[in-house]
Amino acid sequence: MTAFEKLRIQNSNGKFIAVGLDADINKIPQHLKSSANPVLEFNKSIIEATKKFAGAYKINFAFYEAEGKSGIENIESTLSFIPSDVLTIADGKRGDIGNTSEMYAKAIYDRLHFDSATLNPYMGEDSLKPFLNYKDKLNFILALTSNPGSGDFQKSEMKEGGFLYQSVIQKVTRWNTSKNCGIVFGATNPDELKININSFGDLPVLIPGIGAQGGDLEKITRILGRSKNINFLVNVSRGILYKNNTSEFATAAREEIVRLNNLIKSYL
Amino acid sequence: MTAFEKLRIQNSNGKFIAVGLDADINKIPQHLKSSANPVLEFNKSIIEATKKFAGAYKINFAFYEAEGKSGIENIESTLSFIPSDVLTIADGKRGDIGNTSEMYAKAIYDRLHFDSATLNPYMGEDSLKPFLNYKDKLNFILALTSNPGSGDFQKSEMKEGGFLYQSVIQKVTRWNTSKNCGIVFGATNPDELKININSFGDLPVLIPGIGAQGGDLEKITRILGRSKNINFLVNVSRGILYKNNTSEFATAAREEIVRLNNLIKSYL
Repeated sequence: MTAFEKLRIQNSNGKFIAVGLDADINKIPQHLKSSANPVLEFNKSIIEATKKFAGAYKINFAFYEAEGKSGIENIESTLSFIPSDVLTIADGKRGDIGNTSEMYAKAIYDRLHFDSATLNPYMGEDSLKPFLNYKDKLNFILALTSNPGSGDFQKSEMKEGGFLYQSVIQKVTRWNTSKNCGIVFGATNPDELKININSFGDLPVLIPGIGAQGGDLEKITRILGRSKNINFLVNVSRGILYKNNTSEFATAAREEIVRLNNLIKSYL
Repeated sequence: MTAFEKLRIQNSNGKFIAVGLDADINKIPQHLKSSANPVLEFNKSIIEATKKFAGAYKINFAFYEAEGKSGIENIESTLSFIPSDVLTIADGKRGDIGNTSEMYAKAIYDRLHFDSATLNPYMGEDSLKPFLNYKDKLNFILALTSNPGSGDFQKSEMKEGGFLYQSVIQKVTRWNTSKNCGIVFGATNPDELKININSFGDLPVLIPGIGAQGGDLEKITRILGRSKNINFLVNVSRGILYKNNTSEFATAAREEIVRLNNLIKSYL
């Protein structure tokens, strides 16, 4: 089964949330901090509690790299807790010249066996190609991100018409000959989502920016719902992980993901 | 001493080469492959042989991440062989939303103690800010890269005039209030270097693309030489590391870096 098919099944089962595992040692519940590996303990409990409801788990590499090699071990161990029907996303926003991107792809797909990855398009087609050569994987390429800095370059107007992020979307639809591409489109841009959604074709969409960043779930989901046949994942990190920081954190995380899936279904 | 000052001293001592430590287990000399840690053994010998002549060492994270946690250990150990007067560059082309870039900066600057890093500007100012907050470090932001894909977006014309990569350079000069920014400008673009060099201000330039990628050292250096007071590093990876793959590889690497520094001095 390809990663794209896996995502489609998750969506058809009413699972729309990517749980962002941005495990921050400073934010996890106090009572876990005395355990031998607090972050892993935390991730394990979150996954245990949410795995029946999660469309995907997104592992934000920065949070693990900040812990050095034990962080890398934690990525591997965390992946082992995730059931095989749930999509795994390596969130590293990689992109480099060909022989280097090949090594990144090897790290993410061959060594860690992720289903999908986030990629940065700035360096163009040959920087993405080594990832796109993995036909069964799903490569989410940054189009319009959720942060304020998306205004600096992504929303620059191009001489040929449109904005830079639209030119990225256009090219990604062209590079998607193996149906293994998707795009990242930030929830903080509902107007842009409305205007552009028809240009996505069947590219699945990874949507960060709900919660701490201020994206409006209802607006975004209603737009997605009006378009037919779009597969998507709404990423929620802090809003699920740190909903509650007592010993009830995992139950609170489960309740939150169930609530979010239901909300999304009601808006679609 | 700031990283920028360190680079200036290296340049004033006639050291212009960043040795790209893209250590690939498949390419290192056969006789090293039986050692317990061939990549580390290789890096150590290369550094031993070249450290008096190198302006910087650039560690390409992809090649280490592809080896998992032992790769991360190899980054740490490799750094320990590099003398403190030689600049260290973390080549990961990172860039993400604020709280995530903060973690990447922590990994690179606080944990690994690199002097500088390469960054991707696609996500804009707030994605770079956590790196720019380290006043003593040097942040090389991608402007125009050396690969064919630089034509896909970087060389797109903007409605307000100029190309995307020029808009990046313009903004980086503005963000450089702490004199801790630089740019990456690929050696495969001599015409663009000539046209744009006066817009760089005092941003130091990291120049990849010589050697395997086809950049012309003489052309590039002569252009740099005509501009006054530009600090720069020409990155050479494969051209130094794999110049010779017998037991003489380290001597060959030293001879090559000496030759390249002399060539550059003759062109400047």
